[in-house]
Amino acid sequence: MAARARLSYTTSVGKVGIVGATGYTGAVCAALAASHPELELAFATSDKAAGEPVAARLGLSNRCKIHFSRHEDAEKLAASVDVVLLATTAEQSMALAPKLASKTRVVDLSGAFRLEAGAYPKWYGFDHGAKDLLERAWYGLPELFGAPPPDARLVANPGCYATAALLAIAPLVRDGLASPDHVFVDGKSGASGAGRRSDEAYSFVELAEEMRAYKVGSHQHAPEIARHATRFAKTAPKITFVPHLVPLRRGLLVTAYLSARPGATSESVRASLASAYGASAFVRVAEVEGVTAHGVAGTPLALVGATVADGAIVATSALDNLMKGAASQAMQNVNLWLGLPETAGLDSLPRFAP
Amino acid sequence: MAARARLSYTTSVGKVGIVGATGYTGAVCAALAASHPELELAFATSDKAAGEPVAARLGLSNRCKIHFSRHEDAEKLAASVDVVLLATTAEQSMALAPKLASKTRVVDLSGAFRLEAGAYPKWYGFDHGAKDLLERAWYGLPELFGAPPPDARLVANPGCYATAALLAIAPLVRDGLASPDHVFVDGKSGASGAGRRSDEAYSFVELAEEMRAYKVGSHQHAPEIARHATRFAKTAPKITFVPHLVPLRRGLLVTAYLSARPGATSESVRASLASAYGASAFVRVAEVEGVTAHGVAGTPLALVGATVADGAIVATSALDNLMKGAASQAMQNVNLWLGLPETAGLDSLPRFAP
Amino acid sequence: MAARARLSYTTSVGKVGIVGATGYTGAVCAALAASHPELELAFATSDKAAGEPVAARLGLSNRCKIHFSRHEDAEKLAASVDVVLLATTAEQSMALAPKLASKTRVVDLSGAFRLEAGAYPKWYGFDHGAKDLLERAWYGLPELFGAPPPDARLVANPGCYATAALLAIAPLVRDGLASPDHVFVDGKSGASGAGRRSDEAYSFVELAEEMRAYKVGSHQHAPEIARHATRFAKTAPKITFVPHLVPLRRGLLVTAYLSARPGATSESVRASLASAYGASAFVRVAEVEGVTAHGVAGTPLALVGATVADGAIVATSALDNLMKGAASQAMQNVNLWLGLPETAGLDSLPRFAP
Amino acid sequence: MAARARLSYTTSVGKVGIVGATGYTGAVCAALAASHPELELAFATSDKAAGEPVAARLGLSNRCKIHFSRHEDAEKLAASVDVVLLATTAEQSMALAPKLASKTRVVDLSGAFRLEAGAYPKWYGFDHGAKDLLERAWYGLPELFGAPPPDARLVANPGCYATAALLAIAPLVRDGLASPDHVFVDGKSGASGAGRRSDEAYSFVELAEEMRAYKVGSHQHAPEIARHATRFAKTAPKITFVPHLVPLRRGLLVTAYLSARPGATSESVRASLASAYGASAFVRVAEVEGVTAHGVAGTPLALVGATVADGAIVATSALDNLMKGAASQAMQNVNLWLGLPETAGLDSLPRFAP
Repeated sequence: MAARARLSYTTSVGKVGIVGATGYTGAVCAALAASHPELELAFATSDKAAGEPVAARLGLSNRCKIHFSRHEDAEKLAASVDVVLLATTAEQSMALAPKLASKTRVVDLSGAFRLEAGAYPKWYGFDHGAKDLLERAWYGLPELFGAPPPDARLVANPGCYATAALLAIAPLVRDGLASPDHVFVDGKSGASGAGRRSDEAYSFVELAEEMRAYKVGSHQHAPEIARHATRFAKTAPKITFVPHLVPLRRGLLVTAYLSARPGATSESVRASLASAYGASAFVRVAEVEGVTAHGVAGTPLALVGATVADGAIVATSALDNLMKGAASQAMQNVNLWLGLPETAGLDSLPRFAP
Repeated sequence: MAARARLSYTTSVGKVGIVGATGYTGAVCAALAASHPELELAFATSDKAAGEPVAARLGLSNRCKIHFSRHEDAEKLAASVDVVLLATTAEQSMALAPKLASKTRVVDLSGAFRLEAGAYPKWYGFDHGAKDLLERAWYGLPELFGAPPPDARLVANPGCYATAALLAIAPLVRDGLASPDHVFVDGKSGASGAGRRSDEAYSFVELAEEMRAYKVGSHQHAPEIARHATRFAKTAPKITFVPHLVPLRRGLLVTAYLSARPGATSESVRASLASAYGASAFVRVAEVEGVTAHGVAGTPLALVGATVADGAIVATSALDNLMKGAASQAMQNVNLWLGLPETAGLDSLPRFAP
Repeated sequence: MAARARLSYTTSVGKVGIVGATGYTGAVCAALAASHPELELAFATSDKAAGEPVAARLGLSNRCKIHFSRHEDAEKLAASVDVVLLATTAEQSMALAPKLASKTRVVDLSGAFRLEAGAYPKWYGFDHGAKDLLERAWYGLPELFGAPPPDARLVANPGCYATAALLAIAPLVRDGLASPDHVFVDGKSGASGAGRRSDEAYSFVELAEEMRAYKVGSHQHAPEIARHATRFAKTAPKITFVPHLVPLRRGLLVTAYLSARPGATSESVRASLASAYGASAFVRVAEVEGVTAHGVAGTPLALVGATVADGAIVATSALDNLMKGAASQAMQNVNLWLGLPETAGLDSLPRFAP
Repeated sequence: MAARARLSYTTSVGKVGIVGATGYTGAVCAALAASHPELELAFATSDKAAGEPVAARLGLSNRCKIHFSRHEDAEKLAASVDVVLLATTAEQSMALAPKLASKTRVVDLSGAFRLEAGAYPKWYGFDHGAKDLLERAWYGLPELFGAPPPDARLVANPGCYATAALLAIAPLVRDGLASPDHVFVDGKSGASGAGRRSDEAYSFVELAEEMRAYKVGSHQHAPEIARHATRFAKTAPKITFVPHLVPLRRGLLVTAYLSARPGATSESVRASLASAYGASAFVRVAEVEGVTAHGVAGTPLALVGATVADGAIVATSALDNLMKGAASQAMQNVNLWLGLPETAGLDSLPRFAP
C-alpha cells in the first residue's frame, strides 16, 4: 500500500436534532446526519419509539449511540444544538417552529412556511398562527435562491414536487424561453411521498399495478410552485398541477408543458438549463428522456432536461422524493447555513441502484 | 336447484384467424377468441411456436385443439375464415393486409392503417405501399366512430394511447368546452405496451422503481390522435404528446390538459362525457381521480373523467393496454362487423384484480 | 360466417349466495358466480357495502343486477338458494355455518371446518362450537378426495397452502416414493393471501422489495396438511411448514422437501404425479422448474412437479391463492356437488397474464 | 457550532482496481471503493464503457476522475495497485487470476476459486486450469473463517447463497445442535443476482408477479455450502439446495431446515447464533421472522435467526445479494487483508430503505 499523506484536520462538529425521526423523511434525515463527517446527530424525537436506540431502529451505524426522545422534549433539547430539523406535519411545525427558532436554527420540512399567510386556509386548512416567522422564512432551494443567510431563523425546505417543478421551469421562464401564462405540470410520485400509511389504498395489493391522479387542482404544491416561480417571471405564472401516484417506493418525476416563446429551440432550452446548473453539485442536466427515476434513486441529485416539441417546451425533472425532495435538500441547506461545504456528507453516498 | 328455462338457440359460429399469436397482444386476442361463445379460433400463426398446441402455450382451455401455423400460411388460411386479426408489426401488416383483405375481413392491430399515407415516412419510417387499402381503412374506435360498415375490407384497430386520449378529448372538443388549439397529452404505460422484450432496459432490475419519458415529440400515436380528433373539432388540433414508461405490467393512463372555453365547468365537462358514453358498454365515466389502472385491469373497459382546474380542463382516461388498448377493442370491432352483440365474449370476464 | 348448428339446451340454473363478498376471496367468488353459465349470483352480503350495486363495486358485467345485502340477512336469504359460500373469518363461519347448513348447502372458505375439533384451541385460538357439523364436514379437494357426496351438508374448502402442499405430497407418499416421516414445506405467498389490509406492514413501501418468513411453526395450515395427508400415508406425517411473504399480489408456490424411499427416481416421482392428475381438469404436471406463479395467475389451475435431488425428493406446486387456493376451488366444489360439469364456468377464463 | 477537536490522522491510501466494473456487482464494488475513506479507486475496466468517465456512468461522486479501461489492460494496471477485485465470470476469473496474483492481491467475486478442483467439471462445466492458485485460495467469509492471512495471494469471495446459508448453518452444526446429515436449504433471490440480462425471461413483464424454482439440484452454490460447512461438522453434510427467483431487485433470503439434535431448543439455537456473531460488525441475530430483506437492503449486513419447530431447526438468513452477498463482503475482505478496520468505508452507509 503506497504511503501517502492524507489531510489531517481539526474541526468543530455541528450538532443536529431531528423532530419526528421515525417517519420516512425524518429517518433519512437521521441517517444523513449520523453519517455526516462534520455533524453529529444529537437528538431524535419519536413518541412511538421513545427510549429505543436510534441506530437499531433506523439501521444506522452502531456509532450512533443516542436513544429516541419524546416530542415534548424538543424545545428543551433544541437549546443545545446548532440546527433542528422538523419532519413533522404542517400544523405541528407551525406550532413548534416559533418556540424552537428562538433558541436555534430551524429547517422545516413541512409546508408550514412555504406560502403566504393568506394561502393557508385554502391549501392547508388552517389559519397560520406564526405569521412573523413565516414572513422571514427562507425558501431553501439553493440552486435557485442560494444559501440561507446567516441571520435567518427558519429555512422552509421545499416540497418534493415543487423542487422538481421549479428546477425545470425557473431557468426557462427567467431566460424568456417559456411563457409563464399557463404551465401544465404533470407529476408522478412513488408511494413513500405519502409517508407511512396504514391504509388499504396504499397496501401492496392495491398499489402494485395501479396508477391514478390525485388532488387534481387542489394539491398544496401548486401554489408553492406558482409563488416561487414568480421570482423568475414578470408576472405570476398560472400553474395547473396534477400529481399522480405510481407504483414506486421512491422517486418523483415531473413533466412540465410550457408555451414556447418565439425563438425557443431545443438547443436554447437546453442551454438555459446548462447555464443555470453548470456549477451545481446536485442538479445535472440530461436529455429530456434521460431524466429517470433510477438516475437519482438514493442520491441527493436532481436531473433536469428540456426540449421543444410541436411548439411547446417539454421539461422533465426527476429526484428521489426522500432525498433532494426532502432530506438531502434539508442537509444541503444545513451545510450552507452552517458554512460547511455544500456537499459535506452528501458526496460519498454510493448509489443504491440497482 | 330451481328448474328454470334458459334460452335455447341455434346460431352460426364465426371463424377467426390470428397472425402473430404469441406476442402479448396476439395471445390475448387468441384467448378472447377461444373463449368467445359465438366465435371459434380457427388458426393462429407463430413462427417460433409453429406446430405447438395453442392451448398449452397460451394457457387456454383444452377445448382449443389447434396447433400454431406458420406466418407464411396466413394467406392460404385466411380464405376459410370470417375475419383475420393481424398482431404484427406495422411493416408486416402493410405487406400482408392487401393479400388477406382480398379474401376476408381484416382487423389490423398495428399502426399501418391509422394515418394518412403522407405521414408514414416521418412517423413510421417507411413509405406506405398499400395506399388503396389505407384510404378505405375504417378506424375502429366504436364509441366515437360506430361499427365498421359491412362492406369495409379492413379495420385499423386504434393505438392504445390514441384510444385513451381520443375517448377523453373528443367529446370535450365536439361540445365546444375545450379549445383544440393546443392539447397536452401526458401518457403513462406499463411495460407490456412495448411487447415482448429481450432488452436489458426492460429487465425487472432496470424497470422496477423506474419511470421515464420516451419518444418525446416523436411517438407515432401523436399524429394518430391529432388526425382522428379533427373529426370533432373545426380545425386540426395541435397535440403535444409525451408518453412515459412506468413499472406496471399492464395498464395505461392518459392525463390530458386542454384550454377551457368560456362557460366550461366541472359539471359541463362531466356532462359532456356522460352524454357521449352513457349508452356505451365499455366506456364508463368516473371522477377524474377515480380513473385508475386497477379499475380497468384485465377488462375490456375504459374509464374517463374530467374536471376544470385553474382555467384548464384536466381529463383522465385509463384502459388496459392489452384489452381496450388492443385485443378487446379488436374483438369489439369483430363483433360489430359480424353483426354479433358488441359485448359478446367480453361481458363475462371476471375481473382479475386484485 | 359459416352457418353451423350449435347445441341448443334447456337447463335449470342454480342459485348461489355469498357471505362476505367484498373481501378479496369473496369478490372473486362473486365474479365467478356472476359469469357462470349454469349459476346465478342470487345474493351477496357485505356490511360495508350494503345497498350498493354489486356489479359496479366488483367490476362485474352489468347483467348482475343485485345489491349487497347485510350479513345479518344471510340466514334468511340462504333458504332460497342452492348453495351458500362463506368467505368469512373462521370464527364467523363456525357461528354461521350450522344455521345455514340446516337450510341449504354450505361451502366454507375459512378454516373453521378443516381440522379435528381438538386442534382448534391451539391453531385457531377458540373452542369449536359446532362439533357435529365439523365431524360431518367434507374436505373439498376434489383431485384427492373426489366430489362432495350429495348428502353432505358442508364442504370445507381447503386452505391455499394446504391445497398446494397436498397436491404435491399426497401421490408421492401414497405411492411409497417418499417417506412421511418428516416433510419440510416451504411456502411463498403473495400479499392478497393476507386479505385486505389497512396495515403499514402490508403497505406498498414496506412490502415491495421485501420478503420474510412468518408464523414459523405456528401457521394453521400445517396441521391441515398433516391431517389430510394422513389418508395417503400409513402413519401421520410430520410436517414442518414455514410460510413466507413475497412481493406478489397473487400467487403461491410451495416447495416441499421429502425423504426419498429406495427406488424413487426423478422418473418415478414424475410418473406418480402424472398418474394422479392425468385425468384432472385443473391440476397439470410440469417440470419442477416449470411450476411458476405466472403459469397459474388468474386461472383455476394448479401446477405440480417433482424431482429427486441429492437423495431427497423436491416437489413444487403453484396456484393462484385467490383461485385454486380459494374461489375457483370453491366453485369446483359447487359444480361437483350440484352435479354440474366440474369445469363449468371455469374453463373459458382467458388467462390474465400477458 | 460547538468547537470540538476531531481526530487528526495521517495515513496511507490503498489503491483498488476493479475488473468488470459495469456489471451490477462490479459497479457496487466501484461505488464502495470510490467512497471509501482509506482507499482509492485506481482503475476500473469495462470493454463496453471503455473511455467513459466512471463517475458519470456509475453515478459516483465527481471526485472520482478516472475513465474506464479495457479488460486487456488489467494485467498491466494490476502492478500498481494494492488489490484487484474480479467481478468477472468464473471462466474469466480462472484465466485472469493467476496472471494478476503474481503482481498483487486478488479478490475474486466469481465461483472460480471456491470449490475443489475436481468439482469444476460438474458444477461449472470446465476443467480448472489454475489448480495451484485454487489450492491456496482463501475462502473469504470473515465471520466464520477470519481475516485473509497476509501472505495469501487470492481471496475467493463467497457466493451470495453460500454466505447466507453458511452463516445460518455453521454455528448450529458446530455447536452440535443440528445434525449435518441432511440439510434442506430453500433460497429466494431477487433478480439482480442473475446479473444484467437482455433476456425476455428476466423482463419486467415476465418477472413481476412471478416466482419459480430454478437449477434444482444443480446450482453451483450447493457444493460450495457443503464444502465449507464441513469445517464445522464431523462429516461432510448433505445439502439439498433449491434456489428460487422472486420479484425483488435486490435481496436474498435463505430458509434452512435441519434435523434438531436432542436437547436443541429455540433458546439454545438462538444462543448459538448470538455467541457466534455477538462481536460481529456485520452479522446481526434477530428473531427467525425478523430476518427480512428490508432489514438488509443496501447495507453490508446479514441477519440470521433460528428456532425449533416440530422437531426441526428452522434457520433464516437474509442479506443484500450485491452487498454482503458480493461487493461489501469483498470490501470487508480487502479491509481485513490490508490491515484496515473491518468496517472502514462500510459503516457510514445510510440505509437506502424505504
